Amino acid sequence: MIDYQSIIDTIVTHSKEATNRGIVASYIPELANVSSQKFGIYILDANKKSYSSGEALEGFSIQSISKVLTLAFSFGLVGDELWKRVDVEPSGDPFNHLSLLEQENGIPRNPFINAGAIVIADILVSRLKKPKEEFLSFIQELTNDSSIRYNEKVALSEKRTGYKNYAAASLLKSYGNLHNDVESVLDFYFYQCSLEMNCQQLTSAFYIFMNHGKCQRGKIYLTTNQVKRINALMLTCGFYDEAGEFAFEVGLPGKSGVGGGIVALLPNTYCVATWSPGLNAKGNSKLGMAALEELTTKTGHSIF
Amino acid sequence: MIDYQSIIDTIVTHSKEATNRGIVASYIPELANVSSQKFGIYILDANKKSYSSGEALEGFSIQSISKVLTLAFSFGLVGDELWKRVDVEPSGDPFNHLSLLEQENGIPRNPFINAGAIVIADILVSRLKKPKEEFLSFIQELTNDSSIRYNEKVALSEKRTGYKNYAAASLLKSYGNLHNDVESVLDFYFYQCSLEMNCQQLTSAFYIFMNHGKCQRGKIYLTTNQVKRINALMLTCGFYDEAGEFAFEVGLPGKSGVGGGIVALLPNTYCVATWSPGLNAKGNSKLGMAALEELTTKTGHSIF
Amino acid sequence: MIDYQSIIDTIVTHSKEATNRGIVASYIPELANVSSQKFGIYILDANKKSYSSGEALEGFSIQSISKVLTLAFSFGLVGDELWKRVDVEPSGDPFNHLSLLEQENGIPRNPFINAGAIVIADILVSRLKKPKEEFLSFIQELTNDSSIRYNEKVALSEKRTGYKNYAAASLLKSYGNLHNDVESVLDFYFYQCSLEMNCQQLTSAFYIFMNHGKCQRGKIYLTTNQVKRINALMLTCGFYDEAGEFAFEVGLPGKSGVGGGIVALLPNTYCVATWSPGLNAKGNSKLGMAALEELTTKTGHSIF
Amino acid sequence: MIDYQSIIDTIVTHSKEATNRGIVASYIPELANVSSQKFGIYILDANKKSYSSGEALEGFSIQSISKVLTLAFSFGLVGDELWKRVDVEPSGDPFNHLSLLEQENGIPRNPFINAGAIVIADILVSRLKKPKEEFLSFIQELTNDSSIRYNEKVALSEKRTGYKNYAAASLLKSYGNLHNDVESVLDFYFYQCSLEMNCQQLTSAFYIFMNHGKCQRGKIYLTTNQVKRINALMLTCGFYDEAGEFAFEVGLPGKSGVGGGIVALLPNTYCVATWSPGLNAKGNSKLGMAALEELTTKTGHSIF
Repeated sequence: MIDYQSIIDTIVTHSKEATNRGIVASYIPELANVSSQKFGIYILDANKKSYSSGEALEGFSIQSISKVLTLAFSFGLVGDELWKRVDVEPSGDPFNHLSLLEQENGIPRNPFINAGAIVIADILVSRLKKPKEEFLSFIQELTNDSSIRYNEKVALSEKRTGYKNYAAASLLKSYGNLHNDVESVLDFYFYQCSLEMNCQQLTSAFYIFMNHGKCQRGKIYLTTNQVKRINALMLTCGFYDEAGEFAFEVGLPGKSGVGGGIVALLPNTYCVATWSPGLNAKGNSKLGMAALEELTTKTGHSIF
Repeated sequence: MIDYQSIIDTIVTHSKEATNRGIVASYIPELANVSSQKFGIYILDANKKSYSSGEALEGFSIQSISKVLTLAFSFGLVGDELWKRVDVEPSGDPFNHLSLLEQENGIPRNPFINAGAIVIADILVSRLKKPKEEFLSFIQELTNDSSIRYNEKVALSEKRTGYKNYAAASLLKSYGNLHNDVESVLDFYFYQCSLEMNCQQLTSAFYIFMNHGKCQRGKIYLTTNQVKRINALMLTCGFYDEAGEFAFEVGLPGKSGVGGGIVALLPNTYCVATWSPGLNAKGNSKLGMAALEELTTKTGHSIF
Repeated sequence: MIDYQSIIDTIVTHSKEATNRGIVASYIPELANVSSQKFGIYILDANKKSYSSGEALEGFSIQSISKVLTLAFSFGLVGDELWKRVDVEPSGDPFNHLSLLEQENGIPRNPFINAGAIVIADILVSRLKKPKEEFLSFIQELTNDSSIRYNEKVALSEKRTGYKNYAAASLLKSYGNLHNDVESVLDFYFYQCSLEMNCQQLTSAFYIFMNHGKCQRGKIYLTTNQVKRINALMLTCGFYDEAGEFAFEVGLPGKSGVGGGIVALLPNTYCVATWSPGLNAKGNSKLGMAALEELTTKTGHSIF
Repeated sequence: MIDYQSIIDTIVTHSKEATNRGIVASYIPELANVSSQKFGIYILDANKKSYSSGEALEGFSIQSISKVLTLAFSFGLVGDELWKRVDVEPSGDPFNHLSLLEQENGIPRNPFINAGAIVIADILVSRLKKPKEEFLSFIQELTNDSSIRYNEKVALSEKRTGYKNYAAASLLKSYGNLHNDVESVLDFYFYQCSLEMNCQQLTSAFYIFMNHGKCQRGKIYLTTNQVKRINALMLTCGFYDEAGEFAFEVGLPGKSGVGGGIVALLPNTYCVATWSPGLNAKGNSKLGMAALEELTTKTGHSIF
């Protein structure tokens, strides 16, 4: 019997001692102003037992973690059609490079690089009447938590400075792989990234990926096969050009965000979310990565 | 209780009906002369029960599958030192491209692209007195099967035509990441690739990766942690630029070879090997990929 | 004494016989509707004698040829400051690739790839009170021809479909190498490209590059040194990834446009403009290239 | 009337005052041991008048300058057939990159990147009975100077350390664009690069490129058309990824070598050679580049 509480308490102790905490993202003021001293970790297991340590109930900007949730939502809506517009291979390149997009005629390498997530956003904008409202409802329902909100300030800041995303969306448009106009799709995209959630809420949302598509209340959102695919994508592409390293050191499917959050999961066993705003050179939370390595090493369990 | 025998018999039936069987590798006569009609599959489970169907006992050239075995051998010998000379990230590029090697100053992206495997070969050539003999003994011991042999004809054919490997080794040498001379390292490398094994022997050799580093006879070759890492590498990099697709469709760590073999494994559960010489456009066995997808779909189990 | 008239008349005869005339650009209706049968050529020599054959007085969309004129205008205004924001090396890549821009942190390879020309446009938008009006006046003055006009329909069509240019401008903006907003700069850029001129007017405008910076009426626009640099750029970068081929076959500095125009010049000797709307695979006028090769071969003179 | 002697004397004076002289190539001892204080310049004009200043009669390793001479020799022998195996476009990349070679299926971008020069060497090895002897005779005849020699020590040092060239040759071989074996071609290649010549001899050898293919003694080696093409290649590709810069600043066709030599020419007017062993970051002689810029600025003449 694994004592998760004791393990995560030790992780929090280690995190407090860490002197090199990485660099907090500074491209928008809302992220830059978060203290690098924050650290939270939360585990929700298959039996719905939960374990919490540190600032696990404090909300933060989930940023790219939202890409898994829009993928799940759109995959549920359109099925395998989706893979005609986005590939499933690791990019081997930093998350913002447009080179591959050009080489591969507008088909993004995977749904977790920005260009890929923008295509997914485009699919939702096409499919939904009120994309922002309906996506938020989806998240609230998935987590059974109606308190979850977009952070408008964050969304507007991203809108003002997100030129690389405008470049990506325009390039997609030039290849015919964006069906709505650039402004509408990016408006949705910046809002999805601005979602504010805490570690507890993230494990709640990612419960379906650990539980064959079924949420805590028993509603089925995705098939086993669809979950397998999303988890495979998280493992091979969830951490930009550090995906191999994460698979190698941690051995769990997961996804990071520039706000310092990471969610990961061991199928049939648990979901875990960490939050520590300082990032390493590849844009992933420095202490979050270390925490998850410690977790899988101490429990002795990974998907491998 | 899963009926593996019935599942693999069905797979063999389906393989016989397949009209599009891919293209047999033709760059050396020894590979070109193999019939594309061949198909074998073999499962060895965690309880050492085995299931066989088709030409599972017929030997073939394992080619790149050998890269996992040299990695395991050298990892056991030198430990984490190894990762100073080779990275652990997917390449996002076809297996023979030298571009990344130049961009990244002679550190191959991972041990399964040719350049990475040549660095691993170099480590063994440095460490072992009689590299070819000792590596063969390692395989024979691992499988408890002294009948396994190199195919000299294959090795010599590769030597005559393997100019891209000479290019890769020379480039590694120019960056100081090859410590022995090009000829000696490639001699070893061409021999390792020429190993002839059948599906049964491959599952036997890969048993350690399914069983936390312990072989069938109970000898420990690798730590749990080392096995986690090798499995992670197989998942993220085992199928060249189709690794994402394999993870996505099949959801098992595995490795393919240009001779038409694929080995894969579900940790704690089973090893599986398939053989079908026809390759798809990315150089992986066409029917082998399909067989493994059928297997994980029918059993309902993958690592995700 | 070279008989230019006879040479260009022969060239026109050959052009009429050509069966493979290339493909007329079709991305906007205004270009697509031009007949591929059109062919004109015009020579203006250092003594202001001129030679005309074919449809040399029929206007067409000069498109990328305008990049040399905005470069000359901005070089005259800001001097060598300009080279802090754009490099002078051939790109070795098709004209619309953004990859290099990412690799080189937002400094375009040269002022003739789209990203480079957009930076030049940005400089003019910063410097001029009424950029479009003032640039048009500059051209009218240079050619002593007040009939030259923008084609608004062309500019608006480009604006509606020019997503790759939006992508390039957004990417430049993300690197801080665009000082005005994307919309204003591209508005100017699309207008400059929409300039309508005929072969005669083009030789008139390019007279300064053949004559050490002095126009036909004797006004000095650029120094000898500045002209050397612009001519060097035309030679090394004026024909996208076919610049080497043009230098090799024709041996003159020049610039092509997707509307089928080419202008080239032999310093101290003559300017020549050709127009033939059909393009080769690299986006340069097929018969125009052939005409200029014939011209330099028959006259026996090139810069080499 | 331009006073070349006075100009080059001033250049030598400036070169003596230079404190930042670049870095002498150090990859082989024979180059590393040359003093960075050396500086020579030599002009040979169309009337066979010559001007000399500094150490213009001291021999040095011409290295990549030899690529123009093997190109001229092979172009004379096989004519336009040559361009089926090597392209004429600038590479936009440092001289030793193999990436483009892979992307473009073994056709080197131009004859002045190493891979291209190796293809030219291969052509000579195929065509000549005694390649090294016959190429040396060609140079001796061209210059009317039987004292010119290979430096065997240099050739052997290159052979021992030239792994990137082995990589390039092996890669060419893998694409079928090397008809002889790697060792024979590189043996010739390393010898050609080891040629020792002084500035006077270099201007003598390059006289044909300034004089429409005719040497000083009146023998015709190349047609006017062939010379145009070689000069165009020197201008667009003669200085690696600094070719644009050289065209832009100097405005003459030329070629540099890692031994610190540069030869350039103004058609119908003069040949000039400089020697200064210190290199800039792109591998071209730092003071040599500056000298040639000063020369074209002071004379007021370039090809543009």
